[in-house]
Amino acid sequence: CLSVQVCEWRPPEELKELLDLELRDEGESESQILQRCRDAIRYSVKTSECSSSVGRYRSFGTQLYTYEVGPVFTLVEDAVLRKMMELVGWEEGGDGIFNAGGSMSNMYAVNLARYHHCPDIKQLGLSAAPRLVLFTSQECHYSISKAAAFLGIGTKNVYKVPSDESGKMIPSALEELIKKAKSEGAVPFMVNATAGTTVLGAFDPLEEIADICGEHNLWLHVDACWGGAALISKKHKHLLKGIHRANSVAWNPHKMMMACLQCSAFLVRDKTGLLQRCYSASASYLFQQDKFYDISFDTGDKSIQCGRKPDAFKFWLLWKAVGARQLEQRVDRKCLFHRYLADEIKKREGFRLLMEPEYANVCFWYIPPSLRQLEDGPELWSKLHTVAPVIKERMMKVGSMMVGYQPHSDRANFFRMIVISPQAGKADMDFVLDEIHNLGKDL
Amino acid sequence: CLSVQVCEWRPPEELKELLDLELRDEGESESQILQRCRDAIRYSVKTSECSSSVGRYRSFGTQLYTYEVGPVFTLVEDAVLRKMMELVGWEEGGDGIFNAGGSMSNMYAVNLARYHHCPDIKQLGLSAAPRLVLFTSQECHYSISKAAAFLGIGTKNVYKVPSDESGKMIPSALEELIKKAKSEGAVPFMVNATAGTTVLGAFDPLEEIADICGEHNLWLHVDACWGGAALISKKHKHLLKGIHRANSVAWNPHKMMMACLQCSAFLVRDKTGLLQRCYSASASYLFQQDKFYDISFDTGDKSIQCGRKPDAFKFWLLWKAVGARQLEQRVDRKCLFHRYLADEIKKREGFRLLMEPEYANVCFWYIPPSLRQLEDGPELWSKLHTVAPVIKERMMKVGSMMVGYQPHSDRANFFRMIVISPQAGKADMDFVLDEIHNLGKDL
Repeated sequence: CLSVQVCEWRPPEELKELLDLELRDEGESESQILQRCRDAIRYSVKTSECSSSVGRYRSFGTQLYTYEVGPVFTLVEDAVLRKMMELVGWEEGGDGIFNAGGSMSNMYAVNLARYHHCPDIKQLGLSAAPRLVLFTSQECHYSISKAAAFLGIGTKNVYKVPSDESGKMIPSALEELIKKAKSEGAVPFMVNATAGTTVLGAFDPLEEIADICGEHNLWLHVDACWGGAALISKKHKHLLKGIHRANSVAWNPHKMMMACLQCSAFLVRDKTGLLQRCYSASASYLFQQDKFYDISFDTGDKSIQCGRKPDAFKFWLLWKAVGARQLEQRVDRKCLFHRYLADEIKKREGFRLLMEPEYANVCFWYIPPSLRQLEDGPELWSKLHTVAPVIKERMMKVGSMMVGYQPHSDRANFFRMIVISPQAGKADMDFVLDEIHNLGKDL
Repeated sequence: CLSVQVCEWRPPEELKELLDLELRDEGESESQILQRCRDAIRYSVKTSECSSSVGRYRSFGTQLYTYEVGPVFTLVEDAVLRKMMELVGWEEGGDGIFNAGGSMSNMYAVNLARYHHCPDIKQLGLSAAPRLVLFTSQECHYSISKAAAFLGIGTKNVYKVPSDESGKMIPSALEELIKKAKSEGAVPFMVNATAGTTVLGAFDPLEEIADICGEHNLWLHVDACWGGAALISKKHKHLLKGIHRANSVAWNPHKMMMACLQCSAFLVRDKTGLLQRCYSASASYLFQQDKFYDISFDTGDKSIQCGRKPDAFKFWLLWKAVGARQLEQRVDRKCLFHRYLADEIKKREGFRLLMEPEYANVCFWYIPPSLRQLEDGPELWSKLHTVAPVIKERMMKVGSMMVGYQPHSDRANFFRMIVISPQAGKADMDFVLDEIHNLGKDL
């Protein structure tokens, strides 16, 4: 049993060659993918196979913080980050880290932007700092407010920029708010632009926002957690035009790309080690400086966590298996089905589309026959507001499907349909509409 | 295919009965555990089995934020948290949440303590606040400093309390530092006590620290990420005497308890909804108030994340499988082996114990024959400092085992051995020492 090695050690550069990390256009056969899994196991640290070689500090599963505890997954993370940065359009690369979800990635962004703006805050705290203000659209994900609360910036210092009818941030309104903040004596430090808003699926105009950020010297973060997948599609990447000008990007392959939860990347354009400087605590029990390998691969000090799960591996293996071309087709196919669903909604009596979908969020009301004669006015909308919750309750109890609903500014409760499965087809879209009608026609 | 239900809906109280959530002293048979897995699947939301029932919003794996998307795992998390709070000694229960690791749990604690101290900071931020100071021992985990940096408190406002020789916080030194901070015009708001320090495995004296916190009205957080497992052992729980007086506790079942990474609980004694008030952003697209079930089970707004992995399930299933009694035996057995290892180190020539282990960290130097004639002085220690890194390099390249080393205050690099595997035995302890000698005897 002692002949089983805890780890078949290879230095980073050699292991890179052995693993063939590159993410290509074409996928691989099942047997090749199995071999990749075997290789990943072979060169990883074995933490519990054998009771006679248990002299390993901490045997609770492979995790990331130093190269020596996770050689394979450290390199895989690096390769996936590089590929994602290439898609963002950072030709010279950058830096980044996978972490526990999009809310966390957005928090990293706010903190990093603040550190970039004023590195002293890391040591001195905000009580010695002026009032810092960040800007985001009213349609942004709620994690931006959570970040401001958590990081000590304060939710009142999140200035919400108005969006247009389709949910996109209005650049002139952003500019006005920046001026307002400055006139109040506050200090603007970052703008969060959203590429794929949660409810409407809207994409903020990145080029114009980047211009404004340049003018006012503000960090531009793009929350592309949901919309980032469009970058892989030649047909849809125009939605994120200008993203290469961002200082940082959050992108969750566990959403549209269907890598399993959790798989969330935070990308940074800076190449001077900003991430490391911002996050390091230099714990001497892990990040020894007298190691025998290139310690730039010890990524644990770039993170607020210590041990991290090797989340990037899921996306890497998926990509290896299906290839970039099929990933692209999947995104395109899903957008097609959303288009079909929107067209069906427009055709069918009793359904009403909230707006034409640009990406993969289809928002709509179902109007039961009893309300179809009502004029478009307060009475209709207040009655309609109670329809979606009842249909949802019945849907849950029958167990036929799960489609979410929500109110939105002054709009009554509506359904929001998002399809992620690559197996979905037109019949499924029809089923959703038929079933909503069946569940709600008596209301 | 449409006959497959997306979810077999049960309201919370009914599902609780069906699942038999209680964690007992005795374990269960393999077939019972398999049935528990089948039940967990049966009552969970099926996210991708069937291409014809794909009308489900977001199909990227089961996760937690509302009861409806994760009914089973929401209740399991609740049951595990209750059991852990019972072990902590909070007879009346409390509140809590699982999240992505111990660093995150400690961050939750710092933020919650700050919110408790001054709820206005959530909205207004720290720029309008006085200089807040927290206290922790010099031996604490580095996540406390990372938390202070991330949360805008500032690392300089983390006052490091001296520890004694064995690594325990010195209560009188804590009291002095609190007075010092107050005399500077700063505002103390919390003390972090460590139950099981990272390097030495020391337990801070909780009763005395709780007295001081009471006197100065400070939030007491206990970082029991590593040492919490001792709570399950009648023989070792005295190490955490007084933990029931803490306001919050971080405890990672993914360490000594061997639930798989990640499995980290943050426990709060408060029962008035502090966690919810501190973290909520009330996103209307998820936490609708017009739902048809008890929305107190929608835990997503207690967290800085949106979707969370159902980490508690791993610990719950492990507990169901082996029972409290065997979990206790495992902890006791590991402490026995550490005792054996420490005794062996004292017996063997060329090995030197750093201190008697109280828990499960055994720290020691290996002195190669060429250095054994040197007197105990600067020359020996400076030569010894270079020994562990070389042995570690050889160990990695041979792949025989993985034992970490580190320096510590003014101590030269030493090895730190921690055994977590329940399969480890005395022969493994002997192997570790033999192998270190083999790898380093020529140095």
